[in-house]
Formats: sequence, structure tokens, C-alpha cells
Amino acid sequence: MNAKELHDDAIVIDGLVIAKWDRELFEDMRKGGLTAANCTVSVWEGFQNTVNNIVEMNNLIEANNDIVTKVKTTSDIRRAKQEGKTGIMMGFQNAHAFEDQLGYVQVFKDLGVGVVQMCYNTQNLVGTGCYERDGGLSGFGHEIVAEMNRVGIMCDLSHVGEKTSREVIEASKKPVCYSHCLPSGLKDHPRNKSDEELKFIADHGGFVGVTMFAPFLKNGINSTIEDYVEAIDYIFNLVGEDQIGIGTDFTQGHGQPFFEWLTHDKGYARRLTNFGKIINPEGIRTLGEFPNLTDALLRHGFSETQVRKIMGENWLRVLGDVWGE
Amino acid sequence: MNAKELHDDAIVIDGLVIAKWDRELFEDMRKGGLTAANCTVSVWEGFQNTVNNIVEMNNLIEANNDIVTKVKTTSDIRRAKQEGKTGIMMGFQNAHAFEDQLGYVQVFKDLGVGVVQMCYNTQNLVGTGCYERDGGLSGFGHEIVAEMNRVGIMCDLSHVGEKTSREVIEASKKPVCYSHCLPSGLKDHPRNKSDEELKFIADHGGFVGVTMFAPFLKNGINSTIEDYVEAIDYIFNLVGEDQIGIGTDFTQGHGQPFFEWLTHDKGYARRLTNFGKIINPEGIRTLGEFPNLTDALLRHGFSETQVRKIMGENWLRVLGDVWGE
Repeated sequence: MNAKELHDDAIVIDGLVIAKWDRELFEDMRKGGLTAANCTVSVWEGFQNTVNNIVEMNNLIEANNDIVTKVKTTSDIRRAKQEGKTGIMMGFQNAHAFEDQLGYVQVFKDLGVGVVQMCYNTQNLVGTGCYERDGGLSGFGHEIVAEMNRVGIMCDLSHVGEKTSREVIEASKKPVCYSHCLPSGLKDHPRNKSDEELKFIADHGGFVGVTMFAPFLKNGINSTIEDYVEAIDYIFNLVGEDQIGIGTDFTQGHGQPFFEWLTHDKGYARRLTNFGKIINPEGIRTLGEFPNLTDALLRHGFSETQVRKIMGENWLRVLGDVWGE
Repeated sequence: MNAKELHDDAIVIDGLVIAKWDRELFEDMRKGGLTAANCTVSVWEGFQNTVNNIVEMNNLIEANNDIVTKVKTTSDIRRAKQEGKTGIMMGFQNAHAFEDQLGYVQVFKDLGVGVVQMCYNTQNLVGTGCYERDGGLSGFGHEIVAEMNRVGIMCDLSHVGEKTSREVIEASKKPVCYSHCLPSGLKDHPRNKSDEELKFIADHGGFVGVTMFAPFLKNGINSTIEDYVEAIDYIFNLVGEDQIGIGTDFTQGHGQPFFEWLTHDKGYARRLTNFGKIINPEGIRTLGEFPNLTDALLRHGFSETQVRKIMGENWLRVLGDVWGE
């Protein structure tokens, strides 16, 4: 099977996309051969604005149901593959939308949310993000983790501080993930994870999605798809072939105001970071170029079985473990 | 001047009352000769429910404007004294009502809120309360303190954790307070403050209101007004005669459901503590018995000047320092 045939045949899952949602984007997902993607519908928004974002996404999926379909279970993902559509999983990058209500966890599960990051960069009621001093998982955070375990929402730790992350990994009775991260071993950055952190999550049955966000790659905006594969290989060697996947962090379609919103606490308060110019690695600049990744992984020397696992089968398995369906 | 004459003549300020607000309560405040009281209108409520509480309090003040009056400035407090009414200051026991909006600080100042406790027992966006591990003042918390300084709302640290308290004391450019606390030196309890903490706030120009909440007093529910005076004397000896006042924590009129709400995180989640039976110290079981405190302080040996300071003049001065009017 050549690279193109393999890509067409494989389950391809992107563990994190935070793009500008519209038909053009969905068309590019189809061009890229994506089976499903974890699509961010909440970052700084509270409960009601997040529900509004979900309504908007529901309407958009409905209006484009010739190419996309909402997915809440792994059966839904397999169905999307069969139908030749891209499955839209909804996810949060911040537990802030739960506000102070444990009952909202079930509400959002019922609305189709499958993955929730515990914190986004800063402190919330649950714990603390990776851009400020981290006091660890709060008492309320422990209750949120238990409730996410109960209803079947995966805990994501990508933007979470080291201490809070460790305590979520220890507290969770179901696998947790870094849905989109890079290794500190290749570039030191507050958002990147150390070898110890990567081994710790893997040793506790967790999962690592590898991102290609240029500012966190060794070669920054001069990176190519080979740099991305190097990072995948680095993490592969730490966590093994069954607990690794893709989480691109594509921000396709967004302009500067969106990045200003992302990089300020609460979307408007103090500045937390400044990414500078963002150019995705050459060879995978858009979702439509996803097939190049399968090709690059094969060329790097990964076996067909390993490529299938990395490109989506591992995500499918671990999501099934958490969702229970 | 005998005790009764002194009490009638003095400015009497209670730095913390969280009673059931109704005419009966206001009548008891008048009986007790209160010039003004910091009345809690938010604990676990978010923004909108807190605004609703303020509307309810506004209506109640208006309906009882023969005996109470809203106070937003120290001139208002002096006017209340002249008119023979009790001034109602509005305060929060939790910065949660600010939610994630720095702009809500000015909004609540405009609505008449003069004192806000940074955290209530647990972690919020600002810092952490005294009933869980405390990671300190968050980045957003630093912005909230600066905004409270700017608009003139006093930072209260009574239920705040030790680390967050220290960092608020260091960050604030205006005096901060423990509006209602007792010394660990007389009884060890998570809510009580050590000698070091009491000296630290005083050394930084801060203020200490002394509570008589029985579960935190040495003799518990068997306490008398003499135990309360002992605690006042203990703190007086640590912080001096100019930075001490009264903050009773009267919960008058509330039943068990209210205490269940107070003692669970967010008002309904995990239990944080259990006060057991609450009986206020003999001699000061109700707000109406406030004159007994002036009498007891005089009997203990405090001078008339010192009693005036403790009973209200110190609060008046420090509130003026923070409010600027």
C-alpha cells in the first residue's frame, strides 16, 4: 500500500483543531482525509457563551451535512469514515465553561462535548495553567475530574501547569491526555513537556497528541514537516507506539484579533505570551495537506501499522476507553 | 461618661454582619446602637445573582429608611450617626461575583460595595481560601487587587489562605483587613490567624476586626462576652490601638439551611467544615446587646479613647483611607 492508499484507508484523527469554523474549513478537512477532529468550541467563554458556540457549531454541521457529521461516540467516528465525512467532536480548551456547577459537566456531555482541557494557561476554579505559578488541582477540581470520569469526558492537560497536570493524572480513573504538545527535549518552552512529564502520563495509561505549532518547534516558523516528524519520533521513543497520536493545533482561518484574544488572560486582561508570526511547517501548512504527514511518517521509517496507530487508531481506542462507547 | 453614655455617643461600626436582612434585624441594630455595619450581600453567588441581592437590599433599605440608610462614604456614616440611623455598607465575602471581568469591580463600587473578601474558604480566580491548600494570589488576582485599589474597595482576607493573604497584603497599595478573625494564639483553627499573620498585616498598615464567632473562640459555645474581650485584648497587644476594630460575624436570623450552604464549596459541592451548634457568647447573643461590649471593654480596663477607637473610630479612619471619601 503506498502512502496515498494508506492515508485514504486509515482512520485519521486530529486531536486538536481550533480553526475558524466554516464550509471552506470543512472542505479542507475532507481534502486532508480527516476521519474526525476534536474541534475547540470554548476557551475563555463562560457557560452561556459556550452553549451559544455549540449552537453555532450545530447549525454549521447541519448546513454542511454533506461533508461533516457530529460525532459523540467511537461508533460515530467509524460511521463518519464509512460515509466519507469528517466527524466533528466538540471539545473545550478550558474547564471555565463549567463555571461553579458540577452539574454542567453532564450538561455538556449531553450536548456532545467529549474532551475538556482542565485549564487554559492561567488559574481557574479547577487548577492552574502553564503560564503562571501552579498551585495544583483544587478541591473543586478533584470533584470535576471525578464527574468527568463518571460522565465520560476526557481530561486534557496540554495548557495545564505541571503540578495540576500531575495531580489530574493521579486523580483520574480514566486515561487523560496532552491532546497537543511538543517535547521540551527539542525546545525549552513553558508550553512544552519534559521527558519526565511525558513518561509520567504514559506510565499512568495516558495519551500524548503531538502538535506542530511552529513557535514551540525547534526551528520555529522555519520548520518543515520533517521537524514535526522528528518531534513525533522523539515522543514515540518515550511513550511507545500505542499512546501517541496527532493534535495539530491548526488555527486555520483566524486573524490577529483571534490570537490577541487567545494570548490575554480571560481574552482581554494581561498579556500572557506573544507568539509572533505563525507559519505552519512547510508541507503541512493546511488541513488539506494532512496526507503529506502519512507520507513523511512512512519515509521516516515507521511501519504501516505504526503509522495507522499514530494517525488515528490510538486516538480511537483511548477515546473509546474514556467514552465507553 | 458612663458606659451607656459612651456607647450612645460613640461611632459604632460592625465590620462584618451576615444576618438575615429584614426589619426585625434592622430594629435590633438600632437597639444595639450601631452606626454602621458591613453587610454581606454575596458569598457563593455569581455576578447576576449578586446584583439581585443588591437590588433586594436596596429595596429593604428604602422600605425601612426610618431606621437605616445606605452608606458608601465615611461622610455617609457620619450622617447616619447624626440622623440616628444605622448605615448599611454592602460587602462581599467572595470575589467570585467579579467572575472573570475586571470591569465588574467598578460596577460593584458604583452600586455601593465597599469591602470585598478575596476568597471564601476555597480557590477562586483570584486566590485560595483558608480551607484548602493555598497556591497564592493568581495573576488575575493581582489585577483585581490593583483595580480594587483604584476604585476604592477594601480587600478583606478573613477567610483567605495564608499565602494568598500575604501576597494581597504585599500587593495592595491601600490598607487591607481581616474584617472578622480570631487569634490562633487562643485557639488553633484554620480560620484563626497566627501572631505572625496578625503582626504582618499590622506592620503593612492593615486592619484587624475581631469576631466572636463561638466555634473559633477558646471556650466555644460556652463563651461569654469576657472571652470576646480577651480575644480583643490579645489582638490589641499585637497590632496596637489604632488598627483594631469589631467584626462580629453575626448570622442572626438564619437557620440550618443557610449554614449548610455556607459550609459547602460553591454552596452545594463538597462539605468544607461543620460548625456544629452555634451559640453566640453570653452577653452579646444579639446585635441589640452591642452596648454590653462597650461596657465590657471599659470594665476590662481600656480607656474611653481606646474603646471609641475599637468600637468604630478605627474602622471609620481606615475605610476613609481606602475609599478616599
